[in-house]
Amino acid sequence: MPSIKPDRVLGDLYALRQIGAYKTGVHRPTFSPEDVASRQWLVDRMTEAGLDARIDGIGNVLGSSRAPGRKMLSGSHIETQNHAGWLDGALGVIYALEAARALRDDPATRDLGVDVIAFCDEEGHFGSFLGSRSFIGEVTEADIDNARDRTHGKPMRKALAEAGYAGRPRLTMDPVRYAGYFEAHIEQGSSLETGKLKIGVVTAIVGLWDYRITATGQQNHAGTTMMWERRDAGLALLRLLGAIDQRFPQVAGPRSVWTIGRIAFAPGEPSIIPGEAKALFQFRDADPLVLQRLEAALYQLVEDANRTGSCTITVENVRHGTPAVMDERFQQALDDATSRRAPGLSVRMPSGAGHDAQYIVRKLPAAMMFVPSIGGISHHWSENTSDEDIVLGAQVFADAIASVLKAG
Amino acid sequence: MPSIKPDRVLGDLYALRQIGAYKTGVHRPTFSPEDVASRQWLVDRMTEAGLDARIDGIGNVLGSSRAPGRKMLSGSHIETQNHAGWLDGALGVIYALEAARALRDDPATRDLGVDVIAFCDEEGHFGSFLGSRSFIGEVTEADIDNARDRTHGKPMRKALAEAGYAGRPRLTMDPVRYAGYFEAHIEQGSSLETGKLKIGVVTAIVGLWDYRITATGQQNHAGTTMMWERRDAGLALLRLLGAIDQRFPQVAGPRSVWTIGRIAFAPGEPSIIPGEAKALFQFRDADPLVLQRLEAALYQLVEDANRTGSCTITVENVRHGTPAVMDERFQQALDDATSRRAPGLSVRMPSGAGHDAQYIVRKLPAAMMFVPSIGGISHHWSENTSDEDIVLGAQVFADAIASVLKAG
Repeated sequence: MPSIKPDRVLGDLYALRQIGAYKTGVHRPTFSPEDVASRQWLVDRMTEAGLDARIDGIGNVLGSSRAPGRKMLSGSHIETQNHAGWLDGALGVIYALEAARALRDDPATRDLGVDVIAFCDEEGHFGSFLGSRSFIGEVTEADIDNARDRTHGKPMRKALAEAGYAGRPRLTMDPVRYAGYFEAHIEQGSSLETGKLKIGVVTAIVGLWDYRITATGQQNHAGTTMMWERRDAGLALLRLLGAIDQRFPQVAGPRSVWTIGRIAFAPGEPSIIPGEAKALFQFRDADPLVLQRLEAALYQLVEDANRTGSCTITVENVRHGTPAVMDERFQQALDDATSRRAPGLSVRMPSGAGHDAQYIVRKLPAAMMFVPSIGGISHHWSENTSDEDIVLGAQVFADAIASVLKAG
Repeated sequence: MPSIKPDRVLGDLYALRQIGAYKTGVHRPTFSPEDVASRQWLVDRMTEAGLDARIDGIGNVLGSSRAPGRKMLSGSHIETQNHAGWLDGALGVIYALEAARALRDDPATRDLGVDVIAFCDEEGHFGSFLGSRSFIGEVTEADIDNARDRTHGKPMRKALAEAGYAGRPRLTMDPVRYAGYFEAHIEQGSSLETGKLKIGVVTAIVGLWDYRITATGQQNHAGTTMMWERRDAGLALLRLLGAIDQRFPQVAGPRSVWTIGRIAFAPGEPSIIPGEAKALFQFRDADPLVLQRLEAALYQLVEDANRTGSCTITVENVRHGTPAVMDERFQQALDDATSRRAPGLSVRMPSGAGHDAQYIVRKLPAAMMFVPSIGGISHHWSENTSDEDIVLGAQVFADAIASVLKAG
């Protein structure tokens, strides 16, 4: 088995952390000067590692191995959420790079190739997984024409031109080249830490189903309109959301999650009965049957509300994400590698968050591996993982890739 | 008893409706060119009616009677909400003007004086009842310095200067001059229409108690944070509001109203568990004991929520409005006048909405009279009252003022 070099892994992660440093985290949104600098930094590291490195027309950074035979594709993303953590994305890219280097360094694995990739904009500053979706051929030029940064509205074309990537071809994956895809990531939850475990072996990336709920009533004066004559859209929505809060635990799976992320009343004045009220509602689960059961429960509750209430409630589905199942052999390879390096300290678990792997799995068998997040913190500058856990994860990750490639 | 002239009342109201006409309503916000024109139009009508008319330094329009003895103060406001109704405010001003004219026209009431007033900005474009509060001496120069239009942010000083009112003295009421205050208004609700009644005799203007409710939890990732480990501020707030919805009917009075006018989650993203959630909550009642009971119930529910929940909820009271009780003799005069003109068609009722009378009653005995609103619509351009009801109301109003002044 290859041996990773702890100082090389940590050294790269610390160097990357300096580019756009914000408190103990990083502010490196897609195509910011810091993000562009970090992509060039990555090209230089890839080149040092003997990979043929390039940045394509959407900002994907790919380092291609010159090794013979089928390669493993591995990576994650390098940009961050605004004012967010130093490891979210970066960890998976550096693990992939270290796996490539460790396999090359060991005579026993020298002929096993790892292509390293940093998919652009996994964090969704300009869209939804544009880099990985481009790499599997699911992004059109028109998609890019229409994309704008969600924070400051800059058109993606302008940002690409400023970054120096405009006019470059976009790379598309050749599935025949690859044995599969491996991605590592911080857990973004506290299951590993709480269970004193070191490695999460992802079984599936959950499906995410998003809904817009709208209640329509009658806007009116909050002083002169008696309770019995009101058609209060805000109250109708609150009652539906209360019913969901009661009902969902009865129909959910053990790891289902559901969230009301936004709510707004119109006109939103203290002395006006809301005539319209809106909420964003989502749920996630790794099991398609559970997702269907949750949706059926939602529609039933809305139907009940419309039958008994004085307002009209409509529900619009805006996303029906399919759960992405990870390859069983790859999961076993991760479990086996953990057994060698940290016996008994891996656990199989779904990923509640989305990752580029959920798109790559459409073309290749894929695996995801998690390392612990201190306090389960994510998408915040205080996100962190201990050096010890980072080093252990890098070793397990490289081992698993080597064993899969060796098995052919 | 004096006889009002239907054509004069309706003619004035229709003329006023032309100034800032919007669909079938009016857009005449405070100190807009249309509002300033309407104030000058009113000065001209007052002058024609033999009143000494002037506009003061805050935009109050006062027409003073030259009759001997104690006068009745009567009026309402002349500006409108944005894109709102043609009678809200205007009706009370024209009723007062018509009462002054009708009493002057009749030899039996010629010596009974009515001072007509249009209080500035009852609709709160720049603040809260600035005109009537100025008239009773409760607005400082600093209050005006700090006031800005809520729609476009223009400083009140600038608006006053543009209107030509800057530098004028502000008029302050001399209570000794007056026997009391009478204000007429559209009902802004549907009680009269539903009950086929013509005149609402207001017993009290309700007290309005306003609260800001804030729930604080822990912002987190909506995919990776399991339900049992969440501290979801949005959900905590929704559960409290649900508990209020259950509890308030048990402790409310028969005409209590309570309203959640605004709600917001932070950061308000579909995939982020809200770390903070806020709501604006208010209730109104004419009975101080009921108001206290409702507040006690609110605080008890918050205490229960904080004892059992994982978030922290705080409540801040931002208004404890005292119910404004109307004068019993004046109420009787309105009932008696209705008995003569439309027997059996008056009803005593609280006013759920605020009016200038709630401030004037601090210095003078006061009365408020309502006429029906078609469909109960208010603060919308489609607000309306039939000509027949307008004319009947004007007559009852003038009769009641005459009888109170005659009784000395």
